[in-house]
Amino acid sequence: MNYHVLTLFPQMVLNGLHTSIIGRAEEKGLLHIEAIDIRDYAENKHMRVDDYPYGGGAGMVMQPGPVYGAYQALSDRLGKRPRVIYLTPQGRVFSQSLAEEYSKEEDLVFLCGHYEGIDERVLELIVTDYVSIGDYVLTGGELPAMVMIDCISRLVPGVLSNDVSAEFETFHDSLLEYPQYTRPETFMEKSVPEVLLSGHHGNIDKWRREQSVIRTAKFRPDLLPFADLSEKEKELLKTLDFQAKI
Amino acid sequence: MNYHVLTLFPQMVLNGLHTSIIGRAEEKGLLHIEAIDIRDYAENKHMRVDDYPYGGGAGMVMQPGPVYGAYQALSDRLGKRPRVIYLTPQGRVFSQSLAEEYSKEEDLVFLCGHYEGIDERVLELIVTDYVSIGDYVLTGGELPAMVMIDCISRLVPGVLSNDVSAEFETFHDSLLEYPQYTRPETFMEKSVPEVLLSGHHGNIDKWRREQSVIRTAKFRPDLLPFADLSEKEKELLKTLDFQAKI
Repeated sequence: MNYHVLTLFPQMVLNGLHTSIIGRAEEKGLLHIEAIDIRDYAENKHMRVDDYPYGGGAGMVMQPGPVYGAYQALSDRLGKRPRVIYLTPQGRVFSQSLAEEYSKEEDLVFLCGHYEGIDERVLELIVTDYVSIGDYVLTGGELPAMVMIDCISRLVPGVLSNDVSAEFETFHDSLLEYPQYTRPETFMEKSVPEVLLSGHHGNIDKWRREQSVIRTAKFRPDLLPFADLSEKEKELLKTLDFQAKI
Repeated sequence: MNYHVLTLFPQMVLNGLHTSIIGRAEEKGLLHIEAIDIRDYAENKHMRVDDYPYGGGAGMVMQPGPVYGAYQALSDRLGKRPRVIYLTPQGRVFSQSLAEEYSKEEDLVFLCGHYEGIDERVLELIVTDYVSIGDYVLTGGELPAMVMIDCISRLVPGVLSNDVSAEFETFHDSLLEYPQYTRPETFMEKSVPEVLLSGHHGNIDKWRREQSVIRTAKFRPDLLPFADLSEKEKELLKTLDFQAKI
């Protein structure tokens, strides 16, 4: 998997991702992250890449030329025009299933905006996907690109030390994860739930599934309609002391 | 505003945030970001902070002791127990209004998990807020913490060069932003919309508002019920060639 990030802050992207698990995957050659500085494609001697918006208004807008130039140079080098994801609160909301779709690509380009955005015309010319990581506003597209790269990379075979981790977890079955416990057996007078020490795998699985169902009902009832609940689990939800919508 | 990030990857957080607009705000003394290495509070000579989950299963779980130790040392130093945000896909989904709430705090602690999560008992002891940045799974809580810090910091007075920018934008009125254009007037045979060159502010505002409404209807119809639309705008939506739900 090759990521190409078009940005005004290349160091932010590289420094933020090279530490942690993604950096290790890069060292192993499982993925490659490249940050392309849009400023290198500025068309004036002051290296400016933004200007005032037509029609007035606060802030500056990124000019179309440098963005187009950076993308064109990249496609020429790759010999193809890969998918371009523009990070914007206006986009389709990113999700685990979208990450799965992207993880099958060979090259992905992320275009990071700043200031009041990017000139509309260059977006029309090069962007294939408008994606938002959530309903909140950030100072630029770099962190959303890093979030997406992290999420997609986890799904690239070999990146996680055990592939099972990516499989059995939150969102795969529309249920939240069960609580986890590790040593010591007693911490600040709080003990690990008895059943986890029992060694009885049937009971452990049953308890964990129940905890997942209860937590989802409590914290994310909006996910329940997508979960595959048994009749018994639906009955369980009716006995809870909070309103669970199923 | 003081951010305290409890993490196993302090360099990732600091390097990723010190570049860009947040770093500049830090230099100006408007905010302070501190990364506290949980590993410094390991309770064994091997500096291990994780162990196998009770009850079995893939992956490792972060032990309660080091996390608690890191938080305790911080609260002792601050002389208070500030709000602790645990980044987890299980949490309440982060939003612009939650960012506004957090921007009023003096100190915020972010607890970043890794591996299969953190021992439930220490979460019960110290966490006040469970927050998720979206319905997708990441390798750890660092990027979500950085995203939240970026979003909250934009709302701290003085961080954005013009305070109006934070006010008139996406999500403030449940409408997406209108398209932006800057120099040159013609780019790759595409011209800036005539109205923006007219200098007629009434018409410009009208055009921009219309574009916002149309875009929201097209890309994020789920936001429309929260937007304050005029009767005329509702009529406009009925004329569009795609189905707009209002």
